[in-house]
Amino acid sequence: MQIDLDRMQRRLAALTTPALGGTPAGGMSRLALSDTDRAARDLLIAWLRELGLTTRFDDFGNIYGRRAGREPDLAPVLIGSHLDTVPGGGRFDGILGVVAALEVVSALNDAGVTTRRPIEVVDWTNEEGARFTPAMLASGGALGVFERDWVYARADRQGRTFGDELARIGYRGDESARVGPIATSFELHIEQGPVLEASGESVGVVEGVVGIRWCRVTVRGQSAHAGPTPMALRRDALVAAARMVVAVRDHARTEGRHNATVGSLVPEPGVVNVIPPVVTFSLDLRSQDGPLLDRLTGEDIPALFAAIAAEERVEYTLEVEWAVPPTPFDAANKERAEAICRERGYSARRLWAGAGHDSQYIARVAPAMMLFTPTIGGLSHCETEDAPWPDIAKATDVLLTLVAEAANR
Amino acid sequence: MQIDLDRMQRRLAALTTPALGGTPAGGMSRLALSDTDRAARDLLIAWLRELGLTTRFDDFGNIYGRRAGREPDLAPVLIGSHLDTVPGGGRFDGILGVVAALEVVSALNDAGVTTRRPIEVVDWTNEEGARFTPAMLASGGALGVFERDWVYARADRQGRTFGDELARIGYRGDESARVGPIATSFELHIEQGPVLEASGESVGVVEGVVGIRWCRVTVRGQSAHAGPTPMALRRDALVAAARMVVAVRDHARTEGRHNATVGSLVPEPGVVNVIPPVVTFSLDLRSQDGPLLDRLTGEDIPALFAAIAAEERVEYTLEVEWAVPPTPFDAANKERAEAICRERGYSARRLWAGAGHDSQYIARVAPAMMLFTPTIGGLSHCETEDAPWPDIAKATDVLLTLVAEAANR
Repeated sequence: MQIDLDRMQRRLAALTTPALGGTPAGGMSRLALSDTDRAARDLLIAWLRELGLTTRFDDFGNIYGRRAGREPDLAPVLIGSHLDTVPGGGRFDGILGVVAALEVVSALNDAGVTTRRPIEVVDWTNEEGARFTPAMLASGGALGVFERDWVYARADRQGRTFGDELARIGYRGDESARVGPIATSFELHIEQGPVLEASGESVGVVEGVVGIRWCRVTVRGQSAHAGPTPMALRRDALVAAARMVVAVRDHARTEGRHNATVGSLVPEPGVVNVIPPVVTFSLDLRSQDGPLLDRLTGEDIPALFAAIAAEERVEYTLEVEWAVPPTPFDAANKERAEAICRERGYSARRLWAGAGHDSQYIARVAPAMMLFTPTIGGLSHCETEDAPWPDIAKATDVLLTLVAEAANR
Repeated sequence: MQIDLDRMQRRLAALTTPALGGTPAGGMSRLALSDTDRAARDLLIAWLRELGLTTRFDDFGNIYGRRAGREPDLAPVLIGSHLDTVPGGGRFDGILGVVAALEVVSALNDAGVTTRRPIEVVDWTNEEGARFTPAMLASGGALGVFERDWVYARADRQGRTFGDELARIGYRGDESARVGPIATSFELHIEQGPVLEASGESVGVVEGVVGIRWCRVTVRGQSAHAGPTPMALRRDALVAAARMVVAVRDHARTEGRHNATVGSLVPEPGVVNVIPPVVTFSLDLRSQDGPLLDRLTGEDIPALFAAIAAEERVEYTLEVEWAVPPTPFDAANKERAEAICRERGYSARRLWAGAGHDSQYIARVAPAMMLFTPTIGGLSHCETEDAPWPDIAKATDVLLTLVAEAANR
């Protein structure tokens, strides 16, 4: 059995054309349940069928392609990732994991291998959370983390709901199509950070996924005209919010064991000559240390914000909108992945995933793990996102062996 | 001759109903050239005709109502303000000046007074600049500050142009309708600041309008995923922009002779888990000291921003998009206004206008001046904007006398 790097590159290129959301700058903008997402899904289903797989999609639009095993009643080995991207994102995040899953099936087909267990290739809907928050909405739905009605009612910035958009693109399937019991699960993904590149290693064996908190902060001051309102009398919500943005960054640098990011910040009314009375901003906190995350949202950050709010004479609220604890992956899978790397002479290291992944929900119901490939410059969620193909070949080769072994266990 | 406060209140109420942009919280959202602006214009024209005035509108949609004088060839006395508001603005800013101009005409009519010169009531289009930047776009157009093609091409956030929207609401008139030579001009307006209220004075005699700079700042860092990108490796455009927002505020507080405001700030792509690569923000600078404004945009603020950009490893640009020098008003008009206040026993004081007003463009071509009324809590450009009616009565009485005298000179 061997993987075909040219075939992987062709498939990745076909999944990132302009018609499917490719941008002029070489990146990707393919929001979940958009027309480009539909086009990418249609292509995936065509390929799955060409490979001889049985396709279906469930009530969250998650797409599955099932490769028959000798014992069809056994739980399948699950491989895959997601095809949606952030706006102005890259060509590898998620897409590479789907391409790698297709390549595993192609390599097994090429070698004429039939496994004991079935193998299922999966494309999870709305992994990014860029259109419908939170992230990993549909793996969460299919794996029992979220209620379906709640997922369907999630709305994008234009007020369009997940349920309506899923139906609009023709991918609202049946609950009975959801993935059933899973023997074990693997996901190949780019690291999206600088660790593997810095250490010069080809394969990342992922310890687990850091815990995440998504918070919404609202700052309320007093609207007034920019001209005649003396500086000393202002209650400027944007100045206060700006100080909070800087404070959480400075605190994360000093504390040293978590990442803190403000990605969205909206002053109202957002007009040049009006002192903003209201600012809302997002706060993304991540750490492998669960108790630290609780302390950040419960104590450290409220203390920082309260001091700023008092000085600026504004009020603020901080709501935790989404929280997942750190998720360690299956120990046996991690050990076997490292052993395969040693056997093949591939340099490898363990590392924590800083980004959320559907695999962390799979890990709640089955042994799951992930493999990382290096990411050039550590850059992801941007149009210049790139990954070295020689390392991708090694990681996909490890994935192929892991899947073939697991499907025969 | 005497003014009728009840009539003024009724007219202000009629111009601020929900159908004309009144908000549930008691404020106003009537963007220039919107449907509610059209409705307010239609009402104004109906009233002007009821008062016996000849109405017209020019190629910028500025509406004029002309009250005949005994010598029709003499230049008219101009009075008025504007009917557009910022989103979530108040019921007095601009609207009160139009209502006061109508009241002057009504009082002259009631007294059967015919003046030597004609009197023209004006409603200037898009004074606020909240929809189409810059502010005072249409007085600037009609008075030769801006080219018409340039004004017509100004686009709002949805890409709709001033010219198209003006035609859409049916208010694109002829160039020949523009105001001609002006004998002198008066505008009554709320102060929009705390000075008169703090000093307990009823009438503000406006020294002039501060100089204004509107700048657009763009900060460019590096997009990356919020999760796996270590804090130390980030080039976060939002953190840098937040530091700049705080720096200009702190600098204005220390410098003491100018106001600095950031009203609009937009991170791209504005997604919770993406470190923003680009942030654009507005910067509004105001001072009665023209050379200080030049030094702020040419030296002080670039020095502050360059230091922050270097520390945060981002780039920035600062463009001055609009600049007006400080505009002192006509000395004789100011002295006469003070004398009238003394005669009537109205407390008055001189003060600078912190906000831009159409009168500053009029001052380029004719003697112009403004009267201010106190503003409760100094608050303007907000839904709670309010002004004490007893003081409005006094200022409108002064306006009536100023207009009657000037129209007979």
